[in-house]
Amino acid sequence: MKAVGLIVEYNPFHNGHAYHLKASKEAAEADVVIAVMSGNFLQRGEPALVSKWYRTKMALLNGADIVFELPYRFATQKAETFANGAVSILDAALCETLCFGSESGDISAFFQTIDYLEQQQSSFDENIKRFIGTGVSYPKALALSFQQLSDSENFLDLAKPNNILGFQYIKALKQQKSKVKPITVPRKNADYHDEHFSSETIASATSIRKAIFSGEDGNTEIDQYVPESTKQLLKKYLHHYHVFHQWENYWGYLQFRLIHSSPEELREIYEVEEGLEYRLLAAALESNNFLEFMQKIKTKRYTWTRLQRLCVHILTNTKKAEMAGNLEKASYLRLLGMTTRGKSYLNKIKKDISLPLISKLSSFKGKEILLDVKAARVYSLGVPNHLKNEMIKQEFQQPPIFIK
Amino acid sequence: MKAVGLIVEYNPFHNGHAYHLKASKEAAEADVVIAVMSGNFLQRGEPALVSKWYRTKMALLNGADIVFELPYRFATQKAETFANGAVSILDAALCETLCFGSESGDISAFFQTIDYLEQQQSSFDENIKRFIGTGVSYPKALALSFQQLSDSENFLDLAKPNNILGFQYIKALKQQKSKVKPITVPRKNADYHDEHFSSETIASATSIRKAIFSGEDGNTEIDQYVPESTKQLLKKYLHHYHVFHQWENYWGYLQFRLIHSSPEELREIYEVEEGLEYRLLAAALESNNFLEFMQKIKTKRYTWTRLQRLCVHILTNTKKAEMAGNLEKASYLRLLGMTTRGKSYLNKIKKDISLPLISKLSSFKGKEILLDVKAARVYSLGVPNHLKNEMIKQEFQQPPIFIK
Repeated sequence: MKAVGLIVEYNPFHNGHAYHLKASKEAAEADVVIAVMSGNFLQRGEPALVSKWYRTKMALLNGADIVFELPYRFATQKAETFANGAVSILDAALCETLCFGSESGDISAFFQTIDYLEQQQSSFDENIKRFIGTGVSYPKALALSFQQLSDSENFLDLAKPNNILGFQYIKALKQQKSKVKPITVPRKNADYHDEHFSSETIASATSIRKAIFSGEDGNTEIDQYVPESTKQLLKKYLHHYHVFHQWENYWGYLQFRLIHSSPEELREIYEVEEGLEYRLLAAALESNNFLEFMQKIKTKRYTWTRLQRLCVHILTNTKKAEMAGNLEKASYLRLLGMTTRGKSYLNKIKKDISLPLISKLSSFKGKEILLDVKAARVYSLGVPNHLKNEMIKQEFQQPPIFIK
Repeated sequence: MKAVGLIVEYNPFHNGHAYHLKASKEAAEADVVIAVMSGNFLQRGEPALVSKWYRTKMALLNGADIVFELPYRFATQKAETFANGAVSILDAALCETLCFGSESGDISAFFQTIDYLEQQQSSFDENIKRFIGTGVSYPKALALSFQQLSDSENFLDLAKPNNILGFQYIKALKQQKSKVKPITVPRKNADYHDEHFSSETIASATSIRKAIFSGEDGNTEIDQYVPESTKQLLKKYLHHYHVFHQWENYWGYLQFRLIHSSPEELREIYEVEEGLEYRLLAAALESNNFLEFMQKIKTKRYTWTRLQRLCVHILTNTKKAEMAGNLEKASYLRLLGMTTRGKSYLNKIKKDISLPLISKLSSFKGKEILLDVKAARVYSLGVPNHLKNEMIKQEFQQPPIFIK
């Protein structure tokens, strides 16, 4: 059985994801699709619209055979660390290929760009340093430095978000000396950050979330952009939990945490650096909601997503000391769900997997997973009071989702 | 000008308080009444029904001339420490007398009891230790030990809450070699912990709060037990802030704090001892509200109020290290409000006051007051979202209340 690996967030699963999943399976000539999916908090530093369990169901009902959780340690990180974790899981799950969507759609451009940058490493690094010195953010400095070095048309446009991710995946595969072979399919229609609908059936997750949060009754406006199963699951979630999760649901907790903490304590939190603790505290005392707060702490030096990730770490109380150590490779495979086909694949490869395969949380004793548990607990505080505990308990009680 | 000092919480100010205030002024033959009042969190480990500013107004409109805040460091403590702080403030404010209500009503019984206990100190201490060894709480052990020692009828009944407080006030005065002379007036009608109304005009604050929280429209049922000004101020508070404060308003924050903290972090909090951190965390994961939580953590070993105080310290993130040091005497006088008469008194004694007199928070640089600031900020989170920041700012912007 041949497996193709995808790296996803499915927030929520939409037609573009369905297209990419199908195209990847075909391009890789695979029998099995393995998705590595972020848990409850995402790379942009946001809570997922619905829990990882519902997003797992969406994936399994639409062609994925196995869903592993990308641990918090990697999921709420810059592209490079995110890629390290995701790629290492696909490698451990013995995927033959990794298929990612990109604006480029041409895998050779990725290799050429990486080779070129390796040759030019020292001047590239110098450029990055110089740009950061002018006060811009790291991703911006990266893109600018690359622009300065490259003039060939066959190089990647590293200002495009999916090109960057793909670039990092391939770099990570190379560094980890992985046997997984990367391939890419061009992304269809919607740009990653698009906030408006621009096609008949494909829209970005960003625009779909926007429509969900601005709509009166939740999700009628998005029907044409998501599979029927997503539509039903979103409806069911809203009916059961009365909310879709967004930062504003957690603003009170963030503010509370900031106003009762000392600068010294805040400095212990991962990504709180360079005096940011004072800025955070001052903004918390002056802001009425999360958006106001973000606008107050935003500077040229930090991207919006970097600051949102930092806020997630404050919520989950993730310390520098906890994150120290392994940011190169995942140390466990947490199974969120599988289909019958996924199950046979796992049975077949079981004895060859080098990492612990966790399907029941209580039987795993590794301390590394505590960050995921904490993240799930904090995520649960986004639902109404009388449902919080049910959701908190789910983290330990929920067996992997199984779809026949 | 002669001043009498009272030690109060006014939660809220009621007819019993008015009676006590008047009786104290007469008994002390005083011109000025000085109240030392707990801030936003009280000795029983609860948020005050309404903010310290509203409670200050109630006091000034009903006979008090000066209100000082009893700092958080003393206000949320067992009777002994509470008494230390309160008495030291009255001493610094040059009160001639301290007048407290007691079940006994006979000041000589307090002196006799203290003298007797000093003589019997070692067997008394041994008894306490022995009783604690059987698993009962400290206050219970105190009362039991005393019962064993004393047989004279002229001794205090130290099982009565106001007798205990008075006993601690006098002990504190003695230890601090204070010139303040203690007197006592008998409490009228209502027992401290009474939950039901038992008189036409006097009811305990406990029963008044109970009526407020169980009533449909807040405060109609309590009209006969509180002065008109209290009634109006409660109405105004509810109209402006939409809530009266109670633990349930803060449950979400407490739960959040507990579920994202490590046992090591919780152990740093003041009063978290003897493995309580594990008990707290387990209960937080299982409880849907504060009452459920309290019922889960309650044991014979700790009183309900001791555990509630501990929860307040978790909310305000008050560390053992911050509380270490001076629990003997207050180091500043924070003026919450005054009348014209109170103002002339303060002007007269100003040059003789040994502690900094704070009427504007921003002009005081002492670090000790940060605990009060933090407590006020956390208290503000009990009101609806759009009013939180207004209240947070009040701590720095509100000048002392002035009533002509």
